[in-house]
Amino acid sequence: MSVEKEVENKKVALVIGAGDATGGAIAKRFAKGGYITCVTRRHADKLTTLVNEIKEAGGQAHAFGSDARKEDQVIQLIEDIENNIGEIDVLVFNIGANVPCSILEETAQKYFKIWEMACFSAFLVGREVAKRMVQRQRGNIIFTGATAGMRGSAYFAAFAGAKHALRGLAQSMARELGPQNIHVAHVIVDGAIDTAFIEQTFPDIYAKKEQDGILNPEHIAENYWHISQQPRDAWTFEIDLRPWIEKW
Amino acid sequence: MSVEKEVENKKVALVIGAGDATGGAIAKRFAKGGYITCVTRRHADKLTTLVNEIKEAGGQAHAFGSDARKEDQVIQLIEDIENNIGEIDVLVFNIGANVPCSILEETAQKYFKIWEMACFSAFLVGREVAKRMVQRQRGNIIFTGATAGMRGSAYFAAFAGAKHALRGLAQSMARELGPQNIHVAHVIVDGAIDTAFIEQTFPDIYAKKEQDGILNPEHIAENYWHISQQPRDAWTFEIDLRPWIEKW
Amino acid sequence: MSVEKEVENKKVALVIGAGDATGGAIAKRFAKGGYITCVTRRHADKLTTLVNEIKEAGGQAHAFGSDARKEDQVIQLIEDIENNIGEIDVLVFNIGANVPCSILEETAQKYFKIWEMACFSAFLVGREVAKRMVQRQRGNIIFTGATAGMRGSAYFAAFAGAKHALRGLAQSMARELGPQNIHVAHVIVDGAIDTAFIEQTFPDIYAKKEQDGILNPEHIAENYWHISQQPRDAWTFEIDLRPWIEKW
Amino acid sequence: MSVEKEVENKKVALVIGAGDATGGAIAKRFAKGGYITCVTRRHADKLTTLVNEIKEAGGQAHAFGSDARKEDQVIQLIEDIENNIGEIDVLVFNIGANVPCSILEETAQKYFKIWEMACFSAFLVGREVAKRMVQRQRGNIIFTGATAGMRGSAYFAAFAGAKHALRGLAQSMARELGPQNIHVAHVIVDGAIDTAFIEQTFPDIYAKKEQDGILNPEHIAENYWHISQQPRDAWTFEIDLRPWIEKW
Repeated sequence: MSVEKEVENKKVALVIGAGDATGGAIAKRFAKGGYITCVTRRHADKLTTLVNEIKEAGGQAHAFGSDARKEDQVIQLIEDIENNIGEIDVLVFNIGANVPCSILEETAQKYFKIWEMACFSAFLVGREVAKRMVQRQRGNIIFTGATAGMRGSAYFAAFAGAKHALRGLAQSMARELGPQNIHVAHVIVDGAIDTAFIEQTFPDIYAKKEQDGILNPEHIAENYWHISQQPRDAWTFEIDLRPWIEKW
Repeated sequence: MSVEKEVENKKVALVIGAGDATGGAIAKRFAKGGYITCVTRRHADKLTTLVNEIKEAGGQAHAFGSDARKEDQVIQLIEDIENNIGEIDVLVFNIGANVPCSILEETAQKYFKIWEMACFSAFLVGREVAKRMVQRQRGNIIFTGATAGMRGSAYFAAFAGAKHALRGLAQSMARELGPQNIHVAHVIVDGAIDTAFIEQTFPDIYAKKEQDGILNPEHIAENYWHISQQPRDAWTFEIDLRPWIEKW
Repeated sequence: MSVEKEVENKKVALVIGAGDATGGAIAKRFAKGGYITCVTRRHADKLTTLVNEIKEAGGQAHAFGSDARKEDQVIQLIEDIENNIGEIDVLVFNIGANVPCSILEETAQKYFKIWEMACFSAFLVGREVAKRMVQRQRGNIIFTGATAGMRGSAYFAAFAGAKHALRGLAQSMARELGPQNIHVAHVIVDGAIDTAFIEQTFPDIYAKKEQDGILNPEHIAENYWHISQQPRDAWTFEIDLRPWIEKW
Repeated sequence: MSVEKEVENKKVALVIGAGDATGGAIAKRFAKGGYITCVTRRHADKLTTLVNEIKEAGGQAHAFGSDARKEDQVIQLIEDIENNIGEIDVLVFNIGANVPCSILEETAQKYFKIWEMACFSAFLVGREVAKRMVQRQRGNIIFTGATAGMRGSAYFAAFAGAKHALRGLAQSMARELGPQNIHVAHVIVDGAIDTAFIEQTFPDIYAKKEQDGILNPEHIAENYWHISQQPRDAWTFEIDLRPWIEKW
């Protein structure tokens, strides 16, 4: 990986939830594009490999341990980055929480937690970053959505609710912040992603990898990059991504 | 009002959030239809007028002070009704929380509270009632939705998120519980309702009442009744309601 | 069947495409509600049974042989009814054309014909009736839609296209004519209907009738009636109907 | 413009409806990407400038006069290209027909013609190209959609119907052909495009160009290119494009 483009003024791309394959791939793509990449997950030590990989490829990366569900931690995180590293030009929110359960057995704790992770965190981070972007009248905010944000399937009440809520947040922010030159987008990932989790938990699904039947995180990332680079006369709010053989 | 139909076995219609005009009108409609009506809001004393009106009209009504955001209170409420009054055949969830705000100024507390009221409560009540209905393999659950559940407008991030989440919950429950003979529906109310709140806060909108430009709660209620009485070969999941002159 | 309500001034309910079970049931429902029912299909002689059934039940019915795809016939039909029978207060458009085919094998003739039947006819009849309703500043227009109007499934390019187009027509008419006191609605029928066609062609599906797994035309009709009677402060544009066990 | 990439085996990108700015820009983008570009409109002589511009930039282009509404012409066109120029790897359908009109005054001729141009042509071309692509088990088909395909606005019954139908066609083809390695996509262009038509007819809208308030055809084209190059594990079916200040 060589840095293909110098982004003016050394701008920051912040990826919230870079613990999984998708967040990591997105961070690498923005690093490759010349951004200073800031990546977070709850425990920073699990980001060491990602940060090293980006640096070895000639990119810049900083790891942060930060719980996006905690308002004080989010406020502190954004302040740290803006004061010490650079202006956040791209925010990618990438925390999911896909845990199916019958509505009859879903606990209040889990129902809340899924929303807290997949939606409330997005609100906290989105708001804090938007405050800075509005002052500069520029920026990009991209939320990782899912099919569950469009359709509530049986046994997915909690996840569908959280992803629906995330989409409502994204739309509302897009309509408020667009005219302030802040590009807000929602990427619908529809299908299994090539991750260790899928490999270990759903070997049948993972077997589709041979025929390109699960999403490659790098290919997902390319779409985030594409959206972030759109000139403002032709902005995308929503794009879906799915493997060619996925039923939908 | 005369009771027009004896519902078999004296079934209960439970209206969560019967404090406003809509919830009250729905309760009256089901009482008129022969249901034993149970109505809740946080403070039972504010339900006295409603209960008296239903009784004076020949219907049956019971008031409950219950905070639908509190799991223990919800569990207790459903147990009380099922043990002491009758089987819940109809659940109407009718708590809203339409408070617009710029995303830049929305507080975490308010963002959470709007979701807690409009969605988390719906989950708690829906789950507890569904547990009983599944045992009986019958029942009706109707959620009061809003346009904000379909579309995230500027300055409505919190409300749109909550109503999107509610719609995701409703869809997921409909798909899981439908094949168990439990009819789950989502009513999209698109427009101002004839309430004291609208009259006092938005006199310009209220002025449209003269030309039928705001929704009459009794007319809304008629649609809840209609849906609850549909034979199971032709169930509605979603219906929208708006005044004839409403822009949409 | 007894006529339950005298509709003022002997208004007409016109059902275009009353050849099948659904159109027939809708006609009966409006006759029962006091409307003078006018029913059409291409060949009037096939409407004899329907008209007789309505009359024997105490209702009023008139049969018309009319090809809704032919502009001159549509213009003549509406003129005849308005001049000789009464004002059309309700128009129900109920022509479908659900013929699946691979996109690779679909002929231009069939693709066109499916659109002509399911959409172009609706435009012709809708426009002609709307012209009269606008003069009177009142009326109801209800289009029979299908899941294919919401979702384009594999092998349904022609039918999905036609039903999508019909929904676009219905929405556009609703937004233009609503503020002129004309209620335009779109009913999404999602599932097999109890018809001779289903019984003979899809016996496996028809077998679900035992457990209420296919739609009863009378129950569908009840929803058309309900929508046509909504006060104008609470109008429905769209409602879906499906059997409880239908996958969606 | 220099040709940036040699596409293997000299594949063809066919743009149906390359008369306007958007179709022309798309053709240029694919020529730049190494495709042999074939462009059509009803009269080939109006394509001379476009073809010359592509050739002067080092690309390859062929102009065809062809009426996409005529089945025989479409069949002949595809045969000519496949036999004499190369395999069609990318089909872009870009014919629109945005002519607003009250439903009360819309003529049958115009209603039909708008559908014929915006949808029937797409079916004919899509089917003919799909037949070839299925044999090769590869290809890309991209339809230019519009907001009217999602929402039927007042006074847009004909255009909304046609664009809804186009979207139904696209979805149905995507679901049938996707598993055969043919990528079908639908691009929703939401806003005015920088064209001579807009400049002359809607000067007020055109004035927004100064602040990037109308879509630049080159920027639209970049998204068609992006979609056509997606690896098949992460395909987009639908993407929207609108100026940052567009209301939606």
